[in-house]
Amino acid sequence: MPITLKDLKETHQRIKPYIHNTPVLSSSLINEIAGAQLYFKCENFQKMGAFKMRGALNAVLQLSDEQKKRGVATHSSGNFAQALALSAKLQGIKAYIVMPENAPEVKKKAVKGYGGEIIECEANLEARETSLNKVVSETGATFLHPYNDYQVIQGQGTATMELIEEHDDLDYIIAPVGGGGLLSGTALAAYHFSPKTKVIAGEPFGADDVWQSLEKGELIPQTNPQTMADGLLTSLGDKTFPLIQELVEKIIRVEEDEIVTAMRLIWERMKLIVEPSSAVALAAILKEKEKFQGKKIGIILSGGNVDLGNLPF
Amino acid sequence: MPITLKDLKETHQRIKPYIHNTPVLSSSLINEIAGAQLYFKCENFQKMGAFKMRGALNAVLQLSDEQKKRGVATHSSGNFAQALALSAKLQGIKAYIVMPENAPEVKKKAVKGYGGEIIECEANLEARETSLNKVVSETGATFLHPYNDYQVIQGQGTATMELIEEHDDLDYIIAPVGGGGLLSGTALAAYHFSPKTKVIAGEPFGADDVWQSLEKGELIPQTNPQTMADGLLTSLGDKTFPLIQELVEKIIRVEEDEIVTAMRLIWERMKLIVEPSSAVALAAILKEKEKFQGKKIGIILSGGNVDLGNLPF
Repeated sequence: MPITLKDLKETHQRIKPYIHNTPVLSSSLINEIAGAQLYFKCENFQKMGAFKMRGALNAVLQLSDEQKKRGVATHSSGNFAQALALSAKLQGIKAYIVMPENAPEVKKKAVKGYGGEIIECEANLEARETSLNKVVSETGATFLHPYNDYQVIQGQGTATMELIEEHDDLDYIIAPVGGGGLLSGTALAAYHFSPKTKVIAGEPFGADDVWQSLEKGELIPQTNPQTMADGLLTSLGDKTFPLIQELVEKIIRVEEDEIVTAMRLIWERMKLIVEPSSAVALAAILKEKEKFQGKKIGIILSGGNVDLGNLPF
Repeated sequence: MPITLKDLKETHQRIKPYIHNTPVLSSSLINEIAGAQLYFKCENFQKMGAFKMRGALNAVLQLSDEQKKRGVATHSSGNFAQALALSAKLQGIKAYIVMPENAPEVKKKAVKGYGGEIIECEANLEARETSLNKVVSETGATFLHPYNDYQVIQGQGTATMELIEEHDDLDYIIAPVGGGGLLSGTALAAYHFSPKTKVIAGEPFGADDVWQSLEKGELIPQTNPQTMADGLLTSLGDKTFPLIQELVEKIIRVEEDEIVTAMRLIWERMKLIVEPSSAVALAAILKEKEKFQGKKIGIILSGGNVDLGNLPF
């Protein structure tokens, strides 16, 4: 494994002082509906509202003093942008965030709120990369990839380490999958700390590049994804794909209406605000109910950053 | 005091096996905004989604076997209806709930979901009381008042007991006030377990009978209340009023837009679903910020039963 048990332990020690050990919650009503015992790891309560804080912070904390002086840079319009901006702020360093000019105002505002400097670019991959390269060469900032980075993956794995500390007898852990940072971190943590626990991912049908990649045995990039789960639009990377291939039992694909149903259950029954991406994991369990009958299952609720003015119900 | 420290301890022991010891959460961002340290007791995570479960259950658990055979009855279109239905269900007894015929379908459905039998009546106080008396005389069910009842008040006080167990150095505890069951229970628990902690309530301007009653020194009934905080529409009772008069430092009144602002902060920043009534307590703190500068404050988030199709933002 490219990431050892010791790596994960050290990562957790490193980021622990700055992150929340988020609570694990249950709902007897949802357990009844699922016919299983579900333990929700509430990363929606994490600093800046998502698990991404763990990976971003781990990467930032490992920069040299020289690197810190020059700051960090990334391209993201999602939670990683905010996570990197906040991690940089906590360390008193600069964060340059390349965002497409059509990114929602609410997301730009959040990044600025955490002190990040936004560099706008046209909304296409080429413009993104050009802008990022320009920033990096002008400032000397260190580029941090939102998920295809071992430091980031290790950080994301710490959520599962904490979950296993509380519940060491899980049959399954389910996470949503987009670029695969959370999923590969989750799978690595289970592999090292609870080898009998199987890891499964939920993925929207409209963005099923991971399912396709595992079917074909090669990395299929995401093209024209269509899903409300806006955290799951990205392609796998060359670091996340092999880990998922090796460590993840299967991908369960879900329809958009199944995501809404699961999201509504979590909102109404657990009184938790989670983003659509987070609901994909519960939707996967409800999709293959028979498989999970009577099992103990950990679920990573990945985040809670949702636009209250634009809910799917 | 009509309720002793021993009464409260026994109440907590009695209901503990059936309720959640709900988590106490904080938000560094909201602390920054308030200039104080706030500890939110999350009764929105309580069974059936509100603190009302504590009082209803305590009252039901103290019925004689003979009374249990004949069931319980109340009139309520809010959280107490659901709490009593669920408490009765847990004890395997019948619950008759008198509800106005214009009560929202979602509330009727919730009561039925917990196994309660609904008796519909016209939407006025007289019809309510007539229907209730009829049910009680026909069935022999024991009437339980939603808040003007010492068993119910004691039950509500247990939320504050748990809060004080976790944080024994609070300067203030703030709760919303409607009929006064939660507030008088809160004040009693603080009086017995943390006498130096002052208790304050938040109340909507559009339903400020408690503020008026304290000003005049006599119980002024609520007339034509206008507020989105639908848990705070009721009048004080002859048991809750004297307790509040004696034990509560002051009532802070808040405007509707201040309730929305506070509710939005809790939703967006804490990722918690709370009902408007719950947000009234935070709104009160933000209203009188100077008073609370640098203080440690417990807040009772009373519940999370809100219609997702009808949000104020």
